[in-house]
Amino acid sequence: MRIGIDVELYFSPLACSLASRIAVYEAGIEREVAFHDVTLATKRCGDGRDFFGVSAKGQVPALITREGRLLTENAAVLQYLADLAPDAGLAPPPASDARYELQSWLSFVATELHKLAFAVFFDPTAPAEAKAFAVGEKLPKRLGFLDAALARTGPFLLGEAFTVADCYLAVALLWCRPAEVDLTRFPAILGYYKRAHARPQVARAVREELVLSGREVAESPASTA
Amino acid sequence: MRIGIDVELYFSPLACSLASRIAVYEAGIEREVAFHDVTLATKRCGDGRDFFGVSAKGQVPALITREGRLLTENAAVLQYLADLAPDAGLAPPPASDARYELQSWLSFVATELHKLAFAVFFDPTAPAEAKAFAVGEKLPKRLGFLDAALARTGPFLLGEAFTVADCYLAVALLWCRPAEVDLTRFPAILGYYKRAHARPQVARAVREELVLSGREVAESPASTA
Repeated sequence: MRIGIDVELYFSPLACSLASRIAVYEAGIEREVAFHDVTLATKRCGDGRDFFGVSAKGQVPALITREGRLLTENAAVLQYLADLAPDAGLAPPPASDARYELQSWLSFVATELHKLAFAVFFDPTAPAEAKAFAVGEKLPKRLGFLDAALARTGPFLLGEAFTVADCYLAVALLWCRPAEVDLTRFPAILGYYKRAHARPQVARAVREELVLSGREVAESPASTA
Repeated sequence: MRIGIDVELYFSPLACSLASRIAVYEAGIEREVAFHDVTLATKRCGDGRDFFGVSAKGQVPALITREGRLLTENAAVLQYLADLAPDAGLAPPPASDARYELQSWLSFVATELHKLAFAVFFDPTAPAEAKAFAVGEKLPKRLGFLDAALARTGPFLLGEAFTVADCYLAVALLWCRPAEVDLTRFPAILGYYKRAHARPQVARAVREELVLSGREVAESPASTA
């Protein structure tokens, strides 16, 4: 661990770990976080290390806490990062009703959008029928629920405050364009998407990972909406 | 809300909401919880109400908190229930490293086991290819990771303490038999399964929901291992 660095964050450009980068920037704690690039196809870190030596799960994000413990899964990593800077308001106080509501949204994005739909769609080993079912059948229903919820509450998932659940949802919605999901059918989601990605720290994080990924900005999923 | 009842819990027999019943019994708070049966196929409550009137998501578990707010998603509902009875030790203290580790396991069970594999397998609208991919390709890898993790840590996911992550995993593993997943390939999981289901409150919750579901005990997924 380097001097001045509290936590280590393993990420892959434009993967769901982008949500953690957004959280770090929104929380203003980037000086305390060391980022480590991982190539998921080869499970190699940028410095040549075997990523399985860091995390047996082989997935990003993977975070090493201040106490040196490995933490994986977006829902956990994002709450940890939010609690490092409570004044930034990226998560309501622990054990408040609003905190459980945050956990509910983190779970919704992880299970109903990320895993049930996009994880299958972007998996090169998935059969075409599985992809069509995930994105063609399941995802529109979930987006319909989300659209109605955002129309009721807004401007963000928990209301006025931008939280780590928004960091995660903003990233999941980036995947709509490559998955050929038409967001114009969901006006509240479309408005939310524009609002989230207009935030300077969100735009900056997306831009930086686009560069790291080697993609052209013009081809990016960030231009979905 | 009835006198003496703090929270309302909507469940469907043997669905993933069984994890919440186990948590309530393990926490010793059943006098404070009113259970409401939901038929998922018709989205009707046992008393005839439209379940969509309770939760627009139409999924169980759905919990009404002490303050009257709706809470959905296992990861959130289970942490809420655990925090109602901190002395029961079903969740480490909020904002401790162990609490984030709990959140990580809750997310793993929800995303990698429940949604990526079982939710697809048990969905009558899913094509055969999607089911085969979910349970035949993805699930064994995840179970391999889980088996190695349990072999290292044990007896439960966080070590000595039985937590709400174990409530959830114990239920997810019930689905292995109907999904024709052979747990004998994963000795640490098999040992864990037996240990979890030997707990009196786990066995009682499973037994009660088997009766509510109208299934015979002898045919139950509880006899998986």
